[in-house]
Amino acid sequence: MLIERLAVIGVGLIGGSLALALKQAQQCGTVIGCGRNPANLDTAVALGVIDSYSTSLSEAVTGADMVVLAVPLGSMRDTFAAIRPHLAPQAIITDVGSAKASVVQAAQAELGTHFPRFVAGHPIAGAEKSGAQAAQADLFKNRRVILTPTSDTEPSAHARVTQMWRETGAAVEDMEMAHHDAILAATSHLPHMLAYALVDLLAQSASHSEIFRYAAGGFRDFTRIAASDPQMWHDICVANRDPLVQILTAYEAHLHQLTQAIQAGDGPQIKALFQRAKQTRDQING
Amino acid sequence: MLIERLAVIGVGLIGGSLALALKQAQQCGTVIGCGRNPANLDTAVALGVIDSYSTSLSEAVTGADMVVLAVPLGSMRDTFAAIRPHLAPQAIITDVGSAKASVVQAAQAELGTHFPRFVAGHPIAGAEKSGAQAAQADLFKNRRVILTPTSDTEPSAHARVTQMWRETGAAVEDMEMAHHDAILAATSHLPHMLAYALVDLLAQSASHSEIFRYAAGGFRDFTRIAASDPQMWHDICVANRDPLVQILTAYEAHLHQLTQAIQAGDGPQIKALFQRAKQTRDQING
Repeated sequence: MLIERLAVIGVGLIGGSLALALKQAQQCGTVIGCGRNPANLDTAVALGVIDSYSTSLSEAVTGADMVVLAVPLGSMRDTFAAIRPHLAPQAIITDVGSAKASVVQAAQAELGTHFPRFVAGHPIAGAEKSGAQAAQADLFKNRRVILTPTSDTEPSAHARVTQMWRETGAAVEDMEMAHHDAILAATSHLPHMLAYALVDLLAQSASHSEIFRYAAGGFRDFTRIAASDPQMWHDICVANRDPLVQILTAYEAHLHQLTQAIQAGDGPQIKALFQRAKQTRDQING
Repeated sequence: MLIERLAVIGVGLIGGSLALALKQAQQCGTVIGCGRNPANLDTAVALGVIDSYSTSLSEAVTGADMVVLAVPLGSMRDTFAAIRPHLAPQAIITDVGSAKASVVQAAQAELGTHFPRFVAGHPIAGAEKSGAQAAQADLFKNRRVILTPTSDTEPSAHARVTQMWRETGAAVEDMEMAHHDAILAATSHLPHMLAYALVDLLAQSASHSEIFRYAAGGFRDFTRIAASDPQMWHDICVANRDPLVQILTAYEAHLHQLTQAIQAGDGPQIKALFQRAKQTRDQING
């Protein structure tokens, strides 16, 4: 068995699904959950996602050989600081945050001698639903999990976290953390900003009730991510600020070029852009 | 029976689905299709979407009591000019273009004495698939169709086009054409521009193959409309230029405010924007 005692800090969709997947793979003895919402934790126990829980971080991590932080990015640093005095000497620590440089920085600042056994990770799995009741054992099957170990990371800790995610059915790979953050800014964080800004702009229009009445399927697909958790996305904006501002700025310039081409009636430029985009998008399934 | 002889100019998803729906409702005698692609028209006959076809506009509209233009916006004017000499005196003419002012202007310029029997229309129905083989009789069921009659429009022509779309199961309503064009610029044309610009920007990145490899479900939903037909969307940009440039400019300013808030680490402003957007998006189903 890979893990004797798994502590899941934050039993939501991601943390809960990881626990379920590891139990189903019989790679995990006991799972203890930790969180601030007893109702959610009761649900998690009732659904068999976790075996028991504590609302105390120190209790939750005591004796755990694997500690998974599935908390919002803005809570990472405080969580590292709170668990450090209670970690077992050989405990491995990992996280699931969607920006990595800020988490690694916080871990380095707060985990002290435990830092070499911290392995930063990011499962790329949809998160429109939330809470323990949304957990599913196959959430990570055939999905990608990116790990961003540093030169300080102990190879054995890295190997154990890699193996943990493989047991969920995920494809695990390593990436340099700045590179991860730039890729995620482009593929995930930027689209969320564009969707939030669009819905907010239209909501402020005098015709907003009409606007949404006439919205068709394409609009619903396009704006679905604007229903994502505002606190979580606020935290991502703070944690991944520089890569996000960089890609936003590039996007603003690119969009402005298109606006100018439309204004000028520059048919060839407009059509060339649409053709390049379609050609690229056609290569992505789904 | 509402229509004796229906001429569908452009037998694609929209034109074909309209023909199928009217046949199924037994509101249509003969359907003659017209287009430039004989293979597509043969498919349409084989599937029972149309009864026969001609690649000649004059042949197709001769004797028709209802003529539907389901051609790209950029072809509207030439089509109006080509059919005018062959229209029956009482023929009603309508279209399905997703911008209305430019079509009405073209009809006014080209249809001569037939203009009072032209009723501009726009069925708001998804169009990711195309061609006659994508036609489905229930495409318009419970969807909205907007008509933009002018003060010149004959009430009887307006009533017949209204009834035609009701027979497909659609909810039909009238709208002032400039208002239609502003609403559609916001809910449909703007999101397409944003998705095209995003995919094109990322395709130019040095890491583009990686970027798309790590794209998750949210990205796929968000960018699906970037696979739409470039020629059709080029035509929309030309036909609906002013309303589109206006909303694009407003969007650019709104996005830039968000970028600045992220750059400045202005948590409250970021979170307030996301919360307003989520609250609005949560009110839209699907």
